[in-house]
Amino acid sequence: MPKSLSHINQFPINELMSENSIDCVIFGYENQQLKILLIKWKQEDLWTLPGGFIFKNEDMDEAANRILKERTGLQDVFLNQFYTFGNKDRKQTSDSESNRKLDHLSKKLIANPKIYEWITKRFITTGYIALLDINKANPKPDFLSDKCEWKAIDELPQLLYDHESIIQKGLTHLSIQLNYLPVSMLLLPKKFTMQDLQKLYESILNKKLERSNFQRKMLKLGIFIRLEKQLTGAANKAPYLYCFDKPKYTELIKKGIGFTY
Amino acid sequence: MPKSLSHINQFPINELMSENSIDCVIFGYENQQLKILLIKWKQEDLWTLPGGFIFKNEDMDEAANRILKERTGLQDVFLNQFYTFGNKDRKQTSDSESNRKLDHLSKKLIANPKIYEWITKRFITTGYIALLDINKANPKPDFLSDKCEWKAIDELPQLLYDHESIIQKGLTHLSIQLNYLPVSMLLLPKKFTMQDLQKLYESILNKKLERSNFQRKMLKLGIFIRLEKQLTGAANKAPYLYCFDKPKYTELIKKGIGFTY
Repeated sequence: MPKSLSHINQFPINELMSENSIDCVIFGYENQQLKILLIKWKQEDLWTLPGGFIFKNEDMDEAANRILKERTGLQDVFLNQFYTFGNKDRKQTSDSESNRKLDHLSKKLIANPKIYEWITKRFITTGYIALLDINKANPKPDFLSDKCEWKAIDELPQLLYDHESIIQKGLTHLSIQLNYLPVSMLLLPKKFTMQDLQKLYESILNKKLERSNFQRKMLKLGIFIRLEKQLTGAANKAPYLYCFDKPKYTELIKKGIGFTY
Repeated sequence: MPKSLSHINQFPINELMSENSIDCVIFGYENQQLKILLIKWKQEDLWTLPGGFIFKNEDMDEAANRILKERTGLQDVFLNQFYTFGNKDRKQTSDSESNRKLDHLSKKLIANPKIYEWITKRFITTGYIALLDINKANPKPDFLSDKCEWKAIDELPQLLYDHESIIQKGLTHLSIQLNYLPVSMLLLPKKFTMQDLQKLYESILNKKLERSNFQRKMLKLGIFIRLEKQLTGAANKAPYLYCFDKPKYTELIKKGIGFTY
């Protein structure tokens, strides 16, 4: 892969890559907010999901890991395919100003007409969700982007292409996977309160849950270990901290937690 | 699209199609067996899922419906994307004799070397599940195939490419979707017994379920209407027939049934 903008025209992307791309919806959780890692193109105020093309002779899952690493520096992350997007107009952004900026940028960067033709056609793209502990991650922009930032799910900037609907579909996938994958174990810090957990569920399901009912159902699952109280200053109101009982949690999600909300 | 084998070399598939294909896992249910619709290539004993390529300027969902219709004659069927397959060796069948037959057939059919090169490369393929009432379906083979047959899930013939693992992944998807989609309403005939329903669940989940527990949990959901008894000859042992209370079922699956097995 090229390492700087000036090499982009020497890289025969149209010969080496298949006509398939990958886009990563990278979820993190911080300050009781669900966040997504976005990148901003150099030279223009254009935000996208980190993505890239699959080499002709590359396994798709391998490509997803490579692209995630190349575009954000992240590796050894839980990465899971969720859906493939192939509407014929999927590369048109709803915002015409963004289309104009992108067109301007593409023409400026890509001198080779064959590469330009290749890169501007419709690609079918497969979405992957990544789940990680935001406090342990250290993402960095690549040579194509000048920012790589966490954005709260309800404060996303205008995004290119169909990336907003890719995020929405990723969220729907997460809400189902709450019953089948260790979503909360991957997103929460090691120690958390029941309120942290509830807020995470509320962000993913996009609805308010009733506190005592949620805690009762959760604790009944027998997948948590109760730890010390959280130090808040107000000792007698301090909530307990919990961590996951990993073997029990892992066993339970194999057959599905079976929660409804 | 070409309509007969003799036209295949006049159709510039490599210019009109994107490098993406679709494969359909079509589920039916009959005689308490889960079945899958397979097609057999003309001239060789080679079985596959019904599939095809996506036009460059075609929505992927639209392509899935077109391909299903072209290859099997089926239309107006519930069709739902479930996973995309992109291993670099996915077009190699585990059975070397099948690889040889396929190679022989491709060379015989495709005279144009550009089309041959195009068609024999690795394609990333997106799997769709179709769910239908087998008694109402009337599938027919197309010009490329001479059979289009329902095969019981535990009696499948040797399949080309990675199609066996596509079916396995389709089954896993179905098992999760049992909680979120009207799977059993789409697969069962209008009237059915609790035993029919249980056998269907057992086929999809690939495990035995305990009868009284299953029936109790199911009936508690309030989504069935009890009808007359099934006429079996042995009147006092005859089980009740049921049908779905469609509005209640539809409402319930919106939030997920939350069953675990």
